Amino acid sequence: MAKQSTKPAKGTRDFLADDVRRREHVIGVVRDVYRSYGFEPLETPSFERLDTLLGKYGDEGDQLVFKILHRGQNLVNGIRAASEALAQPGVIQIGRAGETAPSVETTLSDLGLRYDLTVPLARVVAQHGSTLPSVYRRYQIQPVWRADTPSKARFREFYQCDVDVVGSTAAVVEVEVASAISEVLERLGFDAFDVQLNHRGLLRAAMRVAGVPADLEVPAIIALDKLDKVGADGVASELRDKGVSEGARSALLDVLTPDASLDAVAAFVERDPEGAEACVNLRAILELAHELPAGRHLRFTSTLARGLGYYTGAIFEVQVADLGASMGGGGRYDGLVGMFSGKQVPACGFSLGLERILVVMEERGLFPERDAARRVLVAPTRAEQAARAARLAHAIRGASRREVELSPDPMKPGAARKSADDRGFGFAVLVDDDADTVNVWSREDPKVRDRRVPPAKLDAALG
Amino acid sequence: MAKQSTKPAKGTRDFLADDVRRREHVIGVVRDVYRSYGFEPLETPSFERLDTLLGKYGDEGDQLVFKILHRGQNLVNGIRAASEALAQPGVIQIGRAGETAPSVETTLSDLGLRYDLTVPLARVVAQHGSTLPSVYRRYQIQPVWRADTPSKARFREFYQCDVDVVGSTAAVVEVEVASAISEVLERLGFDAFDVQLNHRGLLRAAMRVAGVPADLEVPAIIALDKLDKVGADGVASELRDKGVSEGARSALLDVLTPDASLDAVAAFVERDPEGAEACVNLRAILELAHELPAGRHLRFTSTLARGLGYYTGAIFEVQVADLGASMGGGGRYDGLVGMFSGKQVPACGFSLGLERILVVMEERGLFPERDAARRVLVAPTRAEQAARAARLAHAIRGASRREVELSPDPMKPGAARKSADDRGFGFAVLVDDDADTVNVWSREDPKVRDRRVPPAKLDAALG
Repeated sequence: MAKQSTKPAKGTRDFLADDVRRREHVIGVVRDVYRSYGFEPLETPSFERLDTLLGKYGDEGDQLVFKILHRGQNLVNGIRAASEALAQPGVIQIGRAGETAPSVETTLSDLGLRYDLTVPLARVVAQHGSTLPSVYRRYQIQPVWRADTPSKARFREFYQCDVDVVGSTAAVVEVEVASAISEVLERLGFDAFDVQLNHRGLLRAAMRVAGVPADLEVPAIIALDKLDKVGADGVASELRDKGVSEGARSALLDVLTPDASLDAVAAFVERDPEGAEACVNLRAILELAHELPAGRHLRFTSTLARGLGYYTGAIFEVQVADLGASMGGGGRYDGLVGMFSGKQVPACGFSLGLERILVVMEERGLFPERDAARRVLVAPTRAEQAARAARLAHAIRGASRREVELSPDPMKPGAARKSADDRGFGFAVLVDDDADTVNVWSREDPKVRDRRVPPAKLDAALG
Repeated sequence: MAKQSTKPAKGTRDFLADDVRRREHVIGVVRDVYRSYGFEPLETPSFERLDTLLGKYGDEGDQLVFKILHRGQNLVNGIRAASEALAQPGVIQIGRAGETAPSVETTLSDLGLRYDLTVPLARVVAQHGSTLPSVYRRYQIQPVWRADTPSKARFREFYQCDVDVVGSTAAVVEVEVASAISEVLERLGFDAFDVQLNHRGLLRAAMRVAGVPADLEVPAIIALDKLDKVGADGVASELRDKGVSEGARSALLDVLTPDASLDAVAAFVERDPEGAEACVNLRAILELAHELPAGRHLRFTSTLARGLGYYTGAIFEVQVADLGASMGGGGRYDGLVGMFSGKQVPACGFSLGLERILVVMEERGLFPERDAARRVLVAPTRAEQAARAARLAHAIRGASRREVELSPDPMKPGAARKSADDRGFGFAVLVDDDADTVNVWSREDPKVRDRRVPPAKLDAALG
């Protein structure tokens, strides 16, 4: 037979049993905490119409959306149109080598894979708003896809665990989402972590006060976001390349430092009305968080910027000691729902990245052990005993949460015990020629090799 | 602001809170039963390399795979190649109007969305075989995607709940997967359903004995599969169109009827060695199923054919009384893993369709009620009480599985009670100007409007 490649696609992974159990453990804790905060579940389709996705994440984000090929006659038409577009000089925008302009891609594609859970939420609120509570609190735990270059702990398919509150501008919303995130991480066994807090309004004000021209605000915020990767000198040179003046650069980088206090930054930005408002909002959040789970972790961090384009107010990012990477982030985005509904709807949320949590928990041994006592291997020693073994397996499956594997083929007693031992079963039950009893091996007393138990007493023997 | 369309993509759906809870209820039961049978979880990526998917499902299946557009320079090259291919007469195979040949699509695409859970399993077994148990029992509950024409209860994104046993040819495998499926449906509240059972070897033998030429066997099986939709006359005319002779047609349709007994069909096919072997296998399955969950539902159905190309032995389909559609199916496919590993590995499995189960449960009111008593709405009556309300909400969240929603904005007492009532909360806790007590409304005594409870006694008051 011809052999095919058997690897999963680049940047994706197969999750075997232990992987799935670990993922389910984390997702279970996340879901329990989110539910305890009154968040309601939402699931959205894996793909969206392309116009739903594009134009929300910035140019780089648009490039990273996986696009689904047109079908049927639309594909034939699309190929003709794309080929004509390619023939015209200047239509292909070569950003990086070989990149095509979005306009060429959209002739060939009508659908894209979900890039995050926030844009689908905004679409859902616009679509189903009348049937949702006026303040809509939802959680969503689903995979997203990005055509990024894969690397360690960076995948093309990964899970996000989001909570969002839509419909209120109150500062307590920020505190609730940050508290939910903090409680999730505490329950999973994390202790030393910060929920960094900053504000887009404060950053915009700092730009203005420092003298950054209005059209350079967004590029300057993107440059600032790289501070922890490239350092202050790296940011300074990127700001220079973008055309920010020497004076503005040094004013900005003098004030916005990783350890600057809110008071220190406030003294700089409060002369700007939006800056003053941002400081009031940040103080309200920090004040309300007192005595709540968020209060133990929130830390004002004036250099936090967040890459995504849609944030408007408070922004967050979770940093775990020694990890050197974010476990998730979020913030307020009061304009996004309006892009779909035409009506301004305030919103604020937080997204935890499942893969990063798993990597750290794995390194620190934070996963619970699997319970061997619940796992039973039933094996016939001869093919003629298959029916008896099957009925026995069925009888002991009745008990709550017991996992009973029936060997379809006969096993020798020694091989069955070894297999049960190697594979983590608590018990091996051997159905052999003795019609009145079965042979029970137990992980607790692995050396007892011929414990005979009548089927009627088996349930008690398995605990 | 410009308004965008807010509908989910064609053939897909948004699942709001009640939908998700119902889906989770069903998935929870499926998972519990599958685990009790010793099946281990597996999750595979949403997309696979296109060569992993194509050539496994038949031509029609290949057409229905959603294909993901190439990125970067590969896309530019792909557009040029596709456009050249389009310019050559004869390269586009117009199957139905506007369809392009797979060869054109594969110049533009390298990845496809998962079409079922069986082909990914076969790939995983070939890839990870050495780390898996020699008999590998896995379950997998994930969405799949097909570019089908959507209709009622037929979607482009839908969930499958699969169990498979890989590595054994024993008939008890068929009984175990059919029992797991039967137990799932019984626990969900279904009573009257059949697990129809037939055998590809029996069908092939019937074709040969009836005189259908070897090259018409597969088309004839596909025609037979439509019996419940188009009736015996419809099948007969499709067989005639495909070139099956009058004598072969009537021999086949005389023997293969919905109510034919295994003995009656055996008398016809047992003169063929493969037919005789199939009958031995079917009798072993029915015999072993005795006293097991599958035994109550398995019913030999000589007209069952199953559409997919990869089945080799026993085949199943679940039919629920009055539904007129299959809830799922499966069978033995001893050749599929070998397409990846180059090594023959026997396998047999069953796939339940989540959406059909949900439709029937909805119609029959089989979902459990939501527990209102666990749900608490906490609301301040004035903005100044937000911090107190937040701390109170936090305090009562501690209790197991309680869901506490904090209103971020102040609510009038009457509005809060009405909202709690309308939205299914068991309690509304109002934080007002009285610093020593809170006001508690309860669904049990909705008319009591001013029950004052000190915060220390709140936990007891909420039950």
